[in-house]
Amino acid sequence: MKLEHLGIAVKSLKETVPVFEKIFNTKATPVEFVAEQKVNVRKIKLENCDLEFLEGTDAESPISKHIEKRGEGIQHCSFEVPDINKSLTELKEREIRLINETPKQGADNMLIAFLHPKSTAGILMELAQHQNEK
Amino acid sequence: MKLEHLGIAVKSLKETVPVFEKIFNTKATPVEFVAEQKVNVRKIKLENCDLEFLEGTDAESPISKHIEKRGEGIQHCSFEVPDINKSLTELKEREIRLINETPKQGADNMLIAFLHPKSTAGILMELAQHQNEK
Repeated sequence: MKLEHLGIAVKSLKETVPVFEKIFNTKATPVEFVAEQKVNVRKIKLENCDLEFLEGTDAESPISKHIEKRGEGIQHCSFEVPDINKSLTELKEREIRLINETPKQGADNMLIAFLHPKSTAGILMELAQHQNEK
Repeated sequence: MKLEHLGIAVKSLKETVPVFEKIFNTKATPVEFVAEQKVNVRKIKLENCDLEFLEGTDAESPISKHIEKRGEGIQHCSFEVPDINKSLTELKEREIRLINETPKQGADNMLIAFLHPKSTAGILMELAQHQNEK
């Protein structure tokens, strides 16, 4: 399992992304709207993982709720697995608490599932499988 | 610049690390005490970066203070650079706010410096240079 991206909750893409572009001396991807999550997304691609900046477009967005409760910052960590169903079965066998017992469709044609943050130091962990790699 | 590790503040290594060992089906490194930061550290090495679990050994530890203010979770993100002095000079030129204008000695024989979290969505970002790679 390797880290695929860090999901970063921000109040304003317009304010925050340019700072990270300066730090990493690179351009972020154009804004993409993900209707299901009610978020606008821009990514900075590093050598070994991506930074995914998420701005809620609605008070009901999980990102807006995260910022209300915990402030801006890392909202989730996404780990890439070759076979998400196999990984979920293995994690269940090892008695890891899951939010999603079966994968759902995520952005970028990935299958995703979240682990329960209660037992992982409050960190929301996502498993992700690229479907075109199957 | 690539992500070197995520620093994760935990109340108890004993309670939290075994959960992550189960998730990643691997063993963490033995406990290492870092006197300067007043922390006990264990690491899980993934394919492309490390997870560094940090438990304060004293109420004055930066980790204990982080947990008091923000709860358990990711406390900092460390990015590896080949030449930390060159990176700090470049960041200053690009008007990025720094906590450390000159690098200091960190764990694992690394030179480290922190950026100011005010302009980076509250994320504490560390630059790190392996000294033996110089």
